[in-house]
Amino acid sequence: MLELHGQQLIGNATSAESDDTFQAANPTTGESLPTVFHEATESEIDRALTLAAKAFVAFRQTSAEDRARFLEVAADEVEALGQQLIDTTMAETGHPEPRCVGERGRATGQARMFAQLAREGSWVDARIDLAQPDRQPLPKPDVRSLKFPVGPIVVFGASNFPLAISVFGADTVSALAAGCPVVVKAHPAHPATCELVARAILKAAEQTGMPEGVFSMVQGRTNAVGLGLVQHPETAAAAFTGSLRGGRALFDAANARPVPIPFYAEMGSVNPIFVLPGALKERGGEIASGYIQSLTLGVGQFCTNPGLVFGLDSEEMSSFVSGAAEGAKAAAPATMLHAGIHHAFTEGVNAMQHRSGLTLVGQSTAPADEAKSEAACYVFETDAEGLRNNPELYEEVFGPVSTVVKCPDGSDLEEFASQMEGSLTASIHGTEEDLANHRGLIDILEKKVGRLIFNGFPTGIEVCHAMHHGGPYPATAHSYFTSIGTRCIDRFVRPLCFQGWPQSQLPEELQDTNPRGILRLVEGEYTKDPVQK
Amino acid sequence: MLELHGQQLIGNATSAESDDTFQAANPTTGESLPTVFHEATESEIDRALTLAAKAFVAFRQTSAEDRARFLEVAADEVEALGQQLIDTTMAETGHPEPRCVGERGRATGQARMFAQLAREGSWVDARIDLAQPDRQPLPKPDVRSLKFPVGPIVVFGASNFPLAISVFGADTVSALAAGCPVVVKAHPAHPATCELVARAILKAAEQTGMPEGVFSMVQGRTNAVGLGLVQHPETAAAAFTGSLRGGRALFDAANARPVPIPFYAEMGSVNPIFVLPGALKERGGEIASGYIQSLTLGVGQFCTNPGLVFGLDSEEMSSFVSGAAEGAKAAAPATMLHAGIHHAFTEGVNAMQHRSGLTLVGQSTAPADEAKSEAACYVFETDAEGLRNNPELYEEVFGPVSTVVKCPDGSDLEEFASQMEGSLTASIHGTEEDLANHRGLIDILEKKVGRLIFNGFPTGIEVCHAMHHGGPYPATAHSYFTSIGTRCIDRFVRPLCFQGWPQSQLPEELQDTNPRGILRLVEGEYTKDPVQK
Repeated sequence: MLELHGQQLIGNATSAESDDTFQAANPTTGESLPTVFHEATESEIDRALTLAAKAFVAFRQTSAEDRARFLEVAADEVEALGQQLIDTTMAETGHPEPRCVGERGRATGQARMFAQLAREGSWVDARIDLAQPDRQPLPKPDVRSLKFPVGPIVVFGASNFPLAISVFGADTVSALAAGCPVVVKAHPAHPATCELVARAILKAAEQTGMPEGVFSMVQGRTNAVGLGLVQHPETAAAAFTGSLRGGRALFDAANARPVPIPFYAEMGSVNPIFVLPGALKERGGEIASGYIQSLTLGVGQFCTNPGLVFGLDSEEMSSFVSGAAEGAKAAAPATMLHAGIHHAFTEGVNAMQHRSGLTLVGQSTAPADEAKSEAACYVFETDAEGLRNNPELYEEVFGPVSTVVKCPDGSDLEEFASQMEGSLTASIHGTEEDLANHRGLIDILEKKVGRLIFNGFPTGIEVCHAMHHGGPYPATAHSYFTSIGTRCIDRFVRPLCFQGWPQSQLPEELQDTNPRGILRLVEGEYTKDPVQK
Repeated sequence: MLELHGQQLIGNATSAESDDTFQAANPTTGESLPTVFHEATESEIDRALTLAAKAFVAFRQTSAEDRARFLEVAADEVEALGQQLIDTTMAETGHPEPRCVGERGRATGQARMFAQLAREGSWVDARIDLAQPDRQPLPKPDVRSLKFPVGPIVVFGASNFPLAISVFGADTVSALAAGCPVVVKAHPAHPATCELVARAILKAAEQTGMPEGVFSMVQGRTNAVGLGLVQHPETAAAAFTGSLRGGRALFDAANARPVPIPFYAEMGSVNPIFVLPGALKERGGEIASGYIQSLTLGVGQFCTNPGLVFGLDSEEMSSFVSGAAEGAKAAAPATMLHAGIHHAFTEGVNAMQHRSGLTLVGQSTAPADEAKSEAACYVFETDAEGLRNNPELYEEVFGPVSTVVKCPDGSDLEEFASQMEGSLTASIHGTEEDLANHRGLIDILEKKVGRLIFNGFPTGIEVCHAMHHGGPYPATAHSYFTSIGTRCIDRFVRPLCFQGWPQSQLPEELQDTNPRGILRLVEGEYTKDPVQK
């Protein structure tokens, strides 16, 4: 068992300069947890980023194999935390044990995936255009380029995935795989989980001979810590998962810097589901129960939680609503991540209950225990007019609450899809014929979301090469980038071009002999062959 | 000969709502040119972008072959403007005829390169991860993704490349190749050139059956037009080449929108040259003359113009400075793009002449004719102390003026490289041994620039796959993106992901049979083969 100290982890040192401290609470009891955490000071933030900037030179020159080993050993060390990590995460988040174990597996699997990506190496998008010294009217120079790490990355962990989107989440491991040092801001709702994981990463860094400062973590619950990290001159980019309000404030700060930096924020979204007539006929009941399952997964606290469902008014649609209502009634209330989130959820649901044109059709029958921050599941129903009169329904209420909209006509579906803000996902349940019949709807959704799902549900994101978890604003701050899947790494690299550069001084990926054996674009052709001159 | 009308080109219509008009001037005479141009109104801007948004659905569904044809026919039509275009460009910019002809060739060659890129098709980065319905504990869905056009793009042409970085520059042609409609803001210093080229593009759009609104152009010399374009809700992204002041203002406006959009600004830079001892010994005189040639190319009005040269104090370095000074003296003054740029240049040079520690060592012997907006070439010399006392020297003065800094020691080179702001390029003249001896300097420059040049000069950018024309701020607003070379297209596309999507409704690039024959990442392997199931 590791004894927690509640201090900043700055390279190999610990630090607790501030007397401003905080404790996390166990949401299932409301009681404070024992460890006292110290708010990071300006000078601690400065030390972490200065050390990261210093480490950047040596770290980016480590081999891909060395970085892969670092990630793999870190994954091993996170696993080696064993039951202590699981118990700590459960206590801080109210997540049940299987969820914590599963999420740890996703985190370590993801780290090993990025280790493999680094090792394989083709992700650097190496390009080589050869010289033509005799070209007329002007000689052509030798031009080569690859994706190069940008520098220290600040990572803001998410509250809802304390293991998979936090200290050792995709942001951290993709930045490390790219060759960027990382400074994490621990999430104040699960600071002990963060400390354990950070210490495992630091142990791995030491074991694998990484330069000091390649990883640091600071604690904080005030805006000042986040702002200080984003505004620090050595910060090259930042990745964030959280609320629209917090994300936008930090995004604005990142852009207002004398030297603006990319701020990649994933801020959640409403993730509409469209249930088309053919699918309703074939399997309306099954879709209704899948919908409730998706809605209540992780107590509705997933970024891709489905907040709105659209269908065409019909007998089948009414059955669908009844099915969903029954599902909601049967759903057991469960503990949310922390009292603040629970409070916001309760307020959001209360506001909906007072909106005219909106009917509560299903609610968990079992009572929700306020003292345990438990959330019941709520399903509302409205019609096209109701949605037009209540545009607030387009905004996400974080938690297991959702609204089904019965529309008179396919054109209403298109109207509502057009009105919708950017979203991470949209799901369509239909037959292939439905899909062909609603091409206009798809045309609109293509502009509005990052991921289109057919006959499935948005929650439960596959971690893979093709995944895209990023949609138009406000789903994310920059829709070109994902925070899940191997494309993550693109957030932390920029092209660096070498012109006329001697072979001996080029990065391996750009040398004629292709010693890494990676796929490259040579003279406009993709090949793993050495350069033939 | 086309008769110019000076109106907005909004799809197939012309429009001149405003009585606020302007005329361009011939910089070689100072006289106003005849055509009267109408400032675009808010409603004209709105019409152009509304039409572009409407065209976006049909345009992105055109085949890559159709888009390639559109670009090729547009290149043909630009060439078909013949001598009228060349004469117009010469009159508006003071560029000599061979430069205009050469630049037209670069523009049309670039358009054909993007046509070829679209046709080949692998740039979409198609990725396929196959379903595993029986995977435990959860089935794996079929996930596919590709880069997808984002929507209407606003393009701000540059003053210094009226043909290659303007209406039909890389911004426009890469956006069109990607499937994004384009609305260009014509440059007020060469509005007639813009009108001719825009009409050629519109002619090509009509000939190749493109949807109306795929291309529009508005005129304007006030900030309101630029701001209106960036703030319009249908604008999905914008590309800009120009000054730091103008670029930053529009960048801030793009980020302050309710829905922020990417604003890709290339804002020029100081492009340092480091002349290392081995190279100085071998060929100091040759480097000095190459330097002056690069400095005076296009009357010093290239984004990559070398503003600072560093070397270690020595007899050879003194000879180098003498050589550069002689080169400057021999350089003929020439007409700058317009009176405003000429005025800023004169002011910049005057300020330098009054800085202590800075010595003017060479200046064009022939007199510069103010009435023709002519600029002389100026080379200043200073030492390490002089640069430390005059940090303004790190800022670009647009035009043929440059400063040589004699440093006592290699550590000064590193200090100055560290002090430097982000730059598009850095050039090193040296032997391979010099390069190995100055690894610390290279380590710093890798963080500071987008392109590293060995034994060459930064001006004269090769248009190719590997080129990167984009450096850390303030060289560009987002250093991850280039404005020259095929990687340009990445600025206008975002990943779009399809999960469980039926084959018949997938984009061709993601269908099992790979009908486009493109390179794809299938199950983590790069291949052009069809998907084997």
